[in-house]
Amino acid sequence: MPEFQPIDSSVIPRDADVATFMRLPRVHDLDGVEIGIFGVGLDAATYRGGTRQGPAAVREASRAIRRVNPRTEVSPFDLANVADIGDVPVNVLDYAGSLKLVEEHVAGLKGRGIWPIAVGGDHSTTLPVLRGLGGGEPLGLIQFDSHADVQDVFFGTKDNHASLARRATEEGLVDPARVVQIGLRGTRFGDGDVQWGIDAGFTAITYDDYEEMGRAKAIERILESVGDQPVYVTYDIDGLDPTEAPGTPAREPGGLSMRDSQVILRSLNGINAIGGDVCEVAPSLDPSGLTQLNAANLLFEITCLLAANRAKTA
Amino acid sequence: MPEFQPIDSSVIPRDADVATFMRLPRVHDLDGVEIGIFGVGLDAATYRGGTRQGPAAVREASRAIRRVNPRTEVSPFDLANVADIGDVPVNVLDYAGSLKLVEEHVAGLKGRGIWPIAVGGDHSTTLPVLRGLGGGEPLGLIQFDSHADVQDVFFGTKDNHASLARRATEEGLVDPARVVQIGLRGTRFGDGDVQWGIDAGFTAITYDDYEEMGRAKAIERILESVGDQPVYVTYDIDGLDPTEAPGTPAREPGGLSMRDSQVILRSLNGINAIGGDVCEVAPSLDPSGLTQLNAANLLFEITCLLAANRAKTA
Amino acid sequence: MPEFQPIDSSVIPRDADVATFMRLPRVHDLDGVEIGIFGVGLDAATYRGGTRQGPAAVREASRAIRRVNPRTEVSPFDLANVADIGDVPVNVLDYAGSLKLVEEHVAGLKGRGIWPIAVGGDHSTTLPVLRGLGGGEPLGLIQFDSHADVQDVFFGTKDNHASLARRATEEGLVDPARVVQIGLRGTRFGDGDVQWGIDAGFTAITYDDYEEMGRAKAIERILESVGDQPVYVTYDIDGLDPTEAPGTPAREPGGLSMRDSQVILRSLNGINAIGGDVCEVAPSLDPSGLTQLNAANLLFEITCLLAANRAKTA
Amino acid sequence: MPEFQPIDSSVIPRDADVATFMRLPRVHDLDGVEIGIFGVGLDAATYRGGTRQGPAAVREASRAIRRVNPRTEVSPFDLANVADIGDVPVNVLDYAGSLKLVEEHVAGLKGRGIWPIAVGGDHSTTLPVLRGLGGGEPLGLIQFDSHADVQDVFFGTKDNHASLARRATEEGLVDPARVVQIGLRGTRFGDGDVQWGIDAGFTAITYDDYEEMGRAKAIERILESVGDQPVYVTYDIDGLDPTEAPGTPAREPGGLSMRDSQVILRSLNGINAIGGDVCEVAPSLDPSGLTQLNAANLLFEITCLLAANRAKTA
Amino acid sequence: MPEFQPIDSSVIPRDADVATFMRLPRVHDLDGVEIGIFGVGLDAATYRGGTRQGPAAVREASRAIRRVNPRTEVSPFDLANVADIGDVPVNVLDYAGSLKLVEEHVAGLKGRGIWPIAVGGDHSTTLPVLRGLGGGEPLGLIQFDSHADVQDVFFGTKDNHASLARRATEEGLVDPARVVQIGLRGTRFGDGDVQWGIDAGFTAITYDDYEEMGRAKAIERILESVGDQPVYVTYDIDGLDPTEAPGTPAREPGGLSMRDSQVILRSLNGINAIGGDVCEVAPSLDPSGLTQLNAANLLFEITCLLAANRAKTA
Amino acid sequence: MPEFQPIDSSVIPRDADVATFMRLPRVHDLDGVEIGIFGVGLDAATYRGGTRQGPAAVREASRAIRRVNPRTEVSPFDLANVADIGDVPVNVLDYAGSLKLVEEHVAGLKGRGIWPIAVGGDHSTTLPVLRGLGGGEPLGLIQFDSHADVQDVFFGTKDNHASLARRATEEGLVDPARVVQIGLRGTRFGDGDVQWGIDAGFTAITYDDYEEMGRAKAIERILESVGDQPVYVTYDIDGLDPTEAPGTPAREPGGLSMRDSQVILRSLNGINAIGGDVCEVAPSLDPSGLTQLNAANLLFEITCLLAANRAKTA
Repeated sequence: MPEFQPIDSSVIPRDADVATFMRLPRVHDLDGVEIGIFGVGLDAATYRGGTRQGPAAVREASRAIRRVNPRTEVSPFDLANVADIGDVPVNVLDYAGSLKLVEEHVAGLKGRGIWPIAVGGDHSTTLPVLRGLGGGEPLGLIQFDSHADVQDVFFGTKDNHASLARRATEEGLVDPARVVQIGLRGTRFGDGDVQWGIDAGFTAITYDDYEEMGRAKAIERILESVGDQPVYVTYDIDGLDPTEAPGTPAREPGGLSMRDSQVILRSLNGINAIGGDVCEVAPSLDPSGLTQLNAANLLFEITCLLAANRAKTA
Repeated sequence: MPEFQPIDSSVIPRDADVATFMRLPRVHDLDGVEIGIFGVGLDAATYRGGTRQGPAAVREASRAIRRVNPRTEVSPFDLANVADIGDVPVNVLDYAGSLKLVEEHVAGLKGRGIWPIAVGGDHSTTLPVLRGLGGGEPLGLIQFDSHADVQDVFFGTKDNHASLARRATEEGLVDPARVVQIGLRGTRFGDGDVQWGIDAGFTAITYDDYEEMGRAKAIERILESVGDQPVYVTYDIDGLDPTEAPGTPAREPGGLSMRDSQVILRSLNGINAIGGDVCEVAPSLDPSGLTQLNAANLLFEITCLLAANRAKTA
Repeated sequence: MPEFQPIDSSVIPRDADVATFMRLPRVHDLDGVEIGIFGVGLDAATYRGGTRQGPAAVREASRAIRRVNPRTEVSPFDLANVADIGDVPVNVLDYAGSLKLVEEHVAGLKGRGIWPIAVGGDHSTTLPVLRGLGGGEPLGLIQFDSHADVQDVFFGTKDNHASLARRATEEGLVDPARVVQIGLRGTRFGDGDVQWGIDAGFTAITYDDYEEMGRAKAIERILESVGDQPVYVTYDIDGLDPTEAPGTPAREPGGLSMRDSQVILRSLNGINAIGGDVCEVAPSLDPSGLTQLNAANLLFEITCLLAANRAKTA
Repeated sequence: MPEFQPIDSSVIPRDADVATFMRLPRVHDLDGVEIGIFGVGLDAATYRGGTRQGPAAVREASRAIRRVNPRTEVSPFDLANVADIGDVPVNVLDYAGSLKLVEEHVAGLKGRGIWPIAVGGDHSTTLPVLRGLGGGEPLGLIQFDSHADVQDVFFGTKDNHASLARRATEEGLVDPARVVQIGLRGTRFGDGDVQWGIDAGFTAITYDDYEEMGRAKAIERILESVGDQPVYVTYDIDGLDPTEAPGTPAREPGGLSMRDSQVILRSLNGINAIGGDVCEVAPSLDPSGLTQLNAANLLFEITCLLAANRAKTA
Repeated sequence: MPEFQPIDSSVIPRDADVATFMRLPRVHDLDGVEIGIFGVGLDAATYRGGTRQGPAAVREASRAIRRVNPRTEVSPFDLANVADIGDVPVNVLDYAGSLKLVEEHVAGLKGRGIWPIAVGGDHSTTLPVLRGLGGGEPLGLIQFDSHADVQDVFFGTKDNHASLARRATEEGLVDPARVVQIGLRGTRFGDGDVQWGIDAGFTAITYDDYEEMGRAKAIERILESVGDQPVYVTYDIDGLDPTEAPGTPAREPGGLSMRDSQVILRSLNGINAIGGDVCEVAPSLDPSGLTQLNAANLLFEITCLLAANRAKTA
Repeated sequence: MPEFQPIDSSVIPRDADVATFMRLPRVHDLDGVEIGIFGVGLDAATYRGGTRQGPAAVREASRAIRRVNPRTEVSPFDLANVADIGDVPVNVLDYAGSLKLVEEHVAGLKGRGIWPIAVGGDHSTTLPVLRGLGGGEPLGLIQFDSHADVQDVFFGTKDNHASLARRATEEGLVDPARVVQIGLRGTRFGDGDVQWGIDAGFTAITYDDYEEMGRAKAIERILESVGDQPVYVTYDIDGLDPTEAPGTPAREPGGLSMRDSQVILRSLNGINAIGGDVCEVAPSLDPSGLTQLNAANLLFEITCLLAANRAKTA
């Protein structure tokens, strides 16, 4: 049994004690950590603020998570040493510097053999995480999102939440042939909103496509695309339908359900997942707390994918 | 026409006058009552409090209910004398004593030939209601829920919301061959979360099973299982998807919709329903009020089942 | 001991059973009632709707009220038969007709010797109540409010929340020399907002005046003005500071506290109060529920005034 | 390119500047306007108030809308001069007079060749809009709604939100053979709730019907029914499932999703749409803001239908 | 400089990292701890639930606290080793057993020389803390509260939030001559609500008394009463005015401000404070989060008192 | 009468039409504008985001403002041409560039003789506004705030919300002898939080000072300090007590009331006010909307000061 175990919620009530990611230990000494979960409170969505409070809200909501995946039967904390390793101290006064901090933080983890899971923060979190992981073969990327994030320039900047998939491709961090985007929808500025990725070789599954092909076929497409090489999973919470995630800056009606998300992620069990994130939770925009609850459940699913892979690898 | 009639919302606006269950009379003298609806403000969920305010919230939200079921055309208040008979005065300072009060209350109703519908309160409501109904043949049980509630011991206790289906079976209150659980899901502590019931003979339909078999088949399975003997219907509101019921202590994403619940319950019209409950509404956790609205609609559906059966029986 | 007694909250928890005004019996047969409390769900404020849900919210919040006034030691339910007598079935489709319904309702109560306390509903509630009470000597009027409500015509109408004090004066329902307005403030349309009343003989105490003279002096002024003849007390909840009553259509910062209101109302113990109301509670505008809590406490204070007077009179 | 263009949200952040419908110019001079969007703050739902704040809330939420429909590729602001033309100054003190104002306003627009889109306000908005458009051939009507609105008399009135489809038929404003109602459901007062329309020749698709026939077939039925003559589209937001629109007076569980609504409306591209509305948004009843977000997206879909038609016509 | 230091909020933004009480270390090994702050998630208020989530909410809100008291200049973390030592694992299924757990926990701390500060949980927290501290001389008690908590029996129980001051006196845990209650108010069940304490020798300062004597005199009375012997400070958050603490089960209008509370507590600097608590925070009842913010600030004030005293003692 | 007049709320209901600052015209052509009110959606508070939505929320809330100041009788729209001139298009991806945009915007206004009132946005708004106004004699500064904002460096930056008063002094934008800070309080990082300003010559009135000297004396001190030379008024909304302004990033209990703020600002009538701002409104943190309501009222007070001065000057 790995050393780091969550508080047992059938003994210590969930309301009790400090909130950490999935009630795991908050570890300051990284020795022995195999999968490190950390917060990144970036708040640079250009519509409606509040994602800087995302990590705290996901920690609090993740009190609801237990140990065993009901479908795959993966029990991640039996398979790997997973820990809450705190937050990258990003701040809103220095956006570029904050992105650099994230990159260095992840590079440091990589240097110690620790696989990262980031909890955002807005979706500009993902690019510096990928940069921190970079330097080897381009990764596969599974992106749950309502937006393709392939703008070239946004408000005069190149590094931001709306450009991340393009930049990561251009920088060779991800292999466009192994990028899958799922859940794309929403009114558009114009053609550039999605097309760049398709031209670059992405598998871009709009919600229209998804509905037409059906969930089983979509899963097949993802598995084919990412293959058995290392892959990174990013879940922008606005990929979910707004009824599932009201607390996010840019909501687009008509999206993925948690049910679909869970089934897809569980069907990916066995992929070579080596990192991931859940982004764009803005708790002050959701008085019901569903957004962070769902983010916590998605964090658990991503953790299952990494832990199962880590156990295989180890 | 039965004596007890709801206030007519096309004459007296719904906002007006005292809130009772479905605007029915609040009856103090039980003479003539055939179906008695009462509140049970237990608040013993071990994560997130507030279910003690459930009955008041369901009363308030049930102003929205009219008279006729749009699919079955059952008009319950034309078929039986249904009344709001107040609350069992449970309190949080004496959990065991409160369970006893509920049991005695229901035994008293049974003695007068009144069929009970309880509005919780947390799901520990159901066990004492079943005990109050006990003493004859074990009942059938239809349980809408995300959790199977078959823990042996929970926080050192035997009587609680997480053990009710197990205890009711062990005590001979329900016949395990006639127990159907539907909507089970959520991360698990371990195998014990669901398996005990299956081993005991329950028909346990997880949400995965439900999706695979489809709604029509699920209805068939329920009807086969419960047969034409007396049956009790319990709806733990966390059986619903959290988007439908954000105001409940233990939310599990990826669950039943109200649509599915309505179709299933309407398809059960004709079963030998003699009691029921709706539990786990915690209104302070849901600023949109959807949870209590949906609970009120489910209360109406369960009332239809009982009233149709009562009319047949009478 | 009067027949109508509230549910004892030290025996039946406050959360339990149907919500009536201060947990009093909801009486359908008016025999024996001395003070009748009723809802009037008018919703005709011209900025921000929702007061039609006021009576229900005040009923629910008044679960918090006990029996004895901590300062005057008046225990109103020991002094008079006070009951919840339901709502006047006003509706938003017929404003003028609804005002007429209120007037007739109150006239009916008056015919039976029942003193009215109305729970609004917007402040257009007060005028028809006064009309229903009319036909004798003009009444004194104590009006807690941020607005003087002395507009001649408002949106082309003569009967409305912004004209009530003027109309009541013009119709001889109140004696302008015995009208006291307290708490007036807020930016103004122009001179007409307050001056008409002063010219007519009102004692108009703006919040500036109130602060300057102090609470004790203000109480003196009220007592002098209303004397020992019959008086009606109306509390427009926007007389309170918005921190005390966020849930009301037209909030004006810098107003009365509940503390001041309680002390003033308690100091009026002994006046010849024969009717009253609390208006402008819009619960959907106040997620904290303070507005209805405070309205319920003010309702208790007004009830104390009437009950003490009734006991003296009887 | 038409003169009236929305603010570009990739240049001026969405949070910035005054909120107008879809960031379009607020035009005071109607010259050149082809499609005029205006608010109608009626608030006459007989259960739960607050729709008078609907137009403001939809304006604010429509900051989220971009330019291009992701499925039909219609870019409405490239096709027609669409503008925010302010609100009809209705008020709650004079319901009948307010309806008249709306009728005259729309008649004025019609006189200038401007096609109207109204943003309610409660659903009593629709009848006077249709009256203002009247005088020619009866229109087709596509009504998304949970209620059929075919009551003869409601609270003693003939003109109201619950009678609109009946009255419009009786007055020859709509052709019953070209009326389609979709999404009907909810408990009923009795047979009269839906049947009158069917008898008159409406195509009434209950949610049960909808589920049974499937979305594609429903779209076919709508297209067949309305044909190529002028048609008006009204979306009562309570046609949506309450999880999608919690902020509306009369919520009925088990309804349409935004996804279905979007696909249906997009499939109607090409119909002869000459007017429309979105009604019953009550923002104070929805702290998550989903209701107005969805209303804004539906407003965009209806605008696409009209703009595409206008471009064809012009 | 003591070993345990809070995270520096001018370096690591407040939103970042795990929420502990005042950003102090969450210590598992109690060696070196001088003042231990712990949560007690009891939830046994008999009106409105939710205090079991109090400790988590206060931890989260206490991110706002810095290091230095602006008036006394006490910097508690410079004076003593203060730490977050987790929660007592109380649960709602066993109230009596939970009280016992708290008592034993505090007795254990006392055995190690650690001074306790409890964060409730409902006010039944205080009695077992006092029992755990018991066995020596009776303590002084400063109780901020709207209720005197001197009921003999409440809902058939002797140990509860409404009886604590009486029971503590009867058991010799506190010296009635050194008990001060401040802020008492609210409608009453009867004479028993306050009088028992006065008869026993308490200094009971109602809000009426407080206003009459003024703050300076009240401080004097407290200092005289408690003298220089050990004293315990309990702050029932409903002692605050409801505008300051909307999120608590039993709100009583017309109460203490935070300003008055801060000045009083700061004026007590120098007393022999050896323990304390802040109770009755129910975060789900306060969407603005003020209640927990204020509780966090009161926690800081109480920590200042203990730390200053500890430094003197050490 | 000046050309730019607000919509008359006694004719067009407040809920109706587009929300602009105080219902003034949204002017695109600056000709004739004397006082220009604009939004600045900066969102760089280092604790809790959301101020980028401040300007929109204040516009919406300012529907409540009428024309005439009830104490000074100043009617600003009779005295000067005041207009809503839109927002500076700042964005969160480029903080430094955004500050530059604000500075240039204000410099542009200054060049046209327009006096600026900014609506934030976080308090880093003020520094670039002062820079835009700079180039002449240093201004006086009246700062309502709980924090003195005199940090030298904050999170590695020199330009930010916590350093503004220091930087403005160092850059000669304000004359330290004519700087008054009022409302200072809150726990501190250390001495540097306030002292630098005092050393530099500021009049720093902590809340302790304020209470001790009384309001009248405080007003005197402000008037003496600022004299009759040009002065800028900045109101950081966290200067208000958190009960008055729950929706702001950094709340400090025990602060200024709206009443005190109104009286102070009204007593300043006659000063040489040439610019001002209201900052730190984060509407998503305040579900009751009080924060933006109060900000709108403070905006009115500041507008009165400027308009009265402008009329005198013109």
